[in-house]
Amino acid sequence: MNDHSFTAPASEDIREAAARIAGRIHRTPLLTCNTIDRLTGARIFFKCENFQKVGAFKARGATNAVFSLTPGELQRGVCTHSSGNHAQALARAAALAGTKAYIVMPSNSSKVKVDAVKGYGGLITFCEPNLEARESTLASVKADTGAIEIHPYNDVRIIAGQATAALEMIEDGESFDLIMAPVGGGGLLSGTALSVHYFSPSTRVIGAEPEMADDASRSFHQKTFIPSVNPKTIADGLRTSLGSITFPIILAHVSDVVTCSESSIIRAMRLIWERMKILTEPSSAVPLATLLEKKVDIAGKKVGIILSGGNVDLDDLPWIRK
Amino acid sequence: MNDHSFTAPASEDIREAAARIAGRIHRTPLLTCNTIDRLTGARIFFKCENFQKVGAFKARGATNAVFSLTPGELQRGVCTHSSGNHAQALARAAALAGTKAYIVMPSNSSKVKVDAVKGYGGLITFCEPNLEARESTLASVKADTGAIEIHPYNDVRIIAGQATAALEMIEDGESFDLIMAPVGGGGLLSGTALSVHYFSPSTRVIGAEPEMADDASRSFHQKTFIPSVNPKTIADGLRTSLGSITFPIILAHVSDVVTCSESSIIRAMRLIWERMKILTEPSSAVPLATLLEKKVDIAGKKVGIILSGGNVDLDDLPWIRK
Repeated sequence: MNDHSFTAPASEDIREAAARIAGRIHRTPLLTCNTIDRLTGARIFFKCENFQKVGAFKARGATNAVFSLTPGELQRGVCTHSSGNHAQALARAAALAGTKAYIVMPSNSSKVKVDAVKGYGGLITFCEPNLEARESTLASVKADTGAIEIHPYNDVRIIAGQATAALEMIEDGESFDLIMAPVGGGGLLSGTALSVHYFSPSTRVIGAEPEMADDASRSFHQKTFIPSVNPKTIADGLRTSLGSITFPIILAHVSDVVTCSESSIIRAMRLIWERMKILTEPSSAVPLATLLEKKVDIAGKKVGIILSGGNVDLDDLPWIRK
Repeated sequence: MNDHSFTAPASEDIREAAARIAGRIHRTPLLTCNTIDRLTGARIFFKCENFQKVGAFKARGATNAVFSLTPGELQRGVCTHSSGNHAQALARAAALAGTKAYIVMPSNSSKVKVDAVKGYGGLITFCEPNLEARESTLASVKADTGAIEIHPYNDVRIIAGQATAALEMIEDGESFDLIMAPVGGGGLLSGTALSVHYFSPSTRVIGAEPEMADDASRSFHQKTFIPSVNPKTIADGLRTSLGSITFPIILAHVSDVVTCSESSIIRAMRLIWERMKILTEPSSAVPLATLLEKKVDIAGKKVGIILSGGNVDLDDLPWIRK
């Protein structure tokens, strides 16, 4: 966590990212729900990244990163290790750019995610399902191919890309009192915090995470990096640790990081499905879950919540015991 | 089926319905999905009535019917028998108009639907779960209260209201080759056919229904009313018979009524959920299911499909065996 050799994305970097990815990703809608407003006593605007390409905000960062490469870099291809949405997002962006994506995936990845990466033309190398194996396998893929590594969140191009979601929310003209995003590795939260800092400085930013994976909350409040160790939350997108780039940005520009129980996540997810008629993954429901637990005072306020994605296994829904 | 004493809604009736319900219902979006287009070889626009008030197109007709009443009629209240979306829609419309809704519901109605009707202030009378009990109970409620009966589909005010969904699709500026709607009692399909007849006469209209409840298809092709007898389809909104008003309109203005299997309905429903990230009820998936079965030639065509609603029991999804 001593990597201070980076410069956080500037406002122009975020504007350039937005221009770079325009037409290559969806500009997603902001939806509201009267029932949820009544329940929370606030006016909540949901940024629907579940409708995004590949079903998650990750398409933004990966597309920005790939299209930021020089022609020479592009020719070498890109690589990463990921079991989730970043793998799909990077494979898709590489295909759009006409280059190869080498994806290291743990051998226990779900078939639907493996098929999705293959569907975008990603070249998969399987490894043992642990971080050491993922990193060593990625190192050998890099050595073999010369591909450029695109980290899922600890990368300024990724952060600038994820920042475009909040930029669109602000451009849509709502004057938010507060914008909330879930936090795992911190790419979305740090990008959101930067966009708000540059483009809507009177808005507060609060991160939300599961109690069962509360490393970001503890890191934030203790102002020192605490890794995520073997987290058990159903919010599978939020199990990762903060990064050396994302954490300082979050410390500098986020007002708070709050937590919620697993049962609140399931309740919030089901509420969104039943009342808004949209599919969201458990990670997406975490900010609303913290509001249902009254962890933030939002009475009468205008609140933006980024619904991070909608990729969920319809055979394994958390409220159904099989 | 000898009731020819009605006049089908005219184009002005549909325009007036649209003006009457504006602001009281949602103008729902048209969504597209590249994956579904690739699968079907067409360009499909989904009219998202799953996002409608009460979660279904039924809000249109019920709102139009209630707000068409004279002040004297309104004071008497409205009544119907329904176990489904019409019950909620009528209760909500009555509440908006400041009058009472007396709803006869079968005693085996799901708790979630009973609670929803109560949530809108509907006054429920339970009855045995068969058509005779529903009709006799409704007759006694009418006698006791003097309330005006609003039939779920066999009513020109209801049909004119349901017709506004297709009117909006046409107003949105797509020149459809074909518009499809599911058919149960025929309120949505007859309204759709009238709007297309008046406002986009070169567009064809095709109805879609489950093989397991193919009374509309058989009635259409034999040009004689055939009732729905004990249908077993999971598309619970499509189990009813055509009406004396809806059937002649369908005969006059619909090009075909096609059918699909139960497994295709489940496949289409899951495809919409997974790829569009929206919740739809089984009935909504029936038109797409017929296209997956290649029952209609849509190669290269622009097709509009009305997704009728999104009220589904999340504890009982058709692809999960408990």
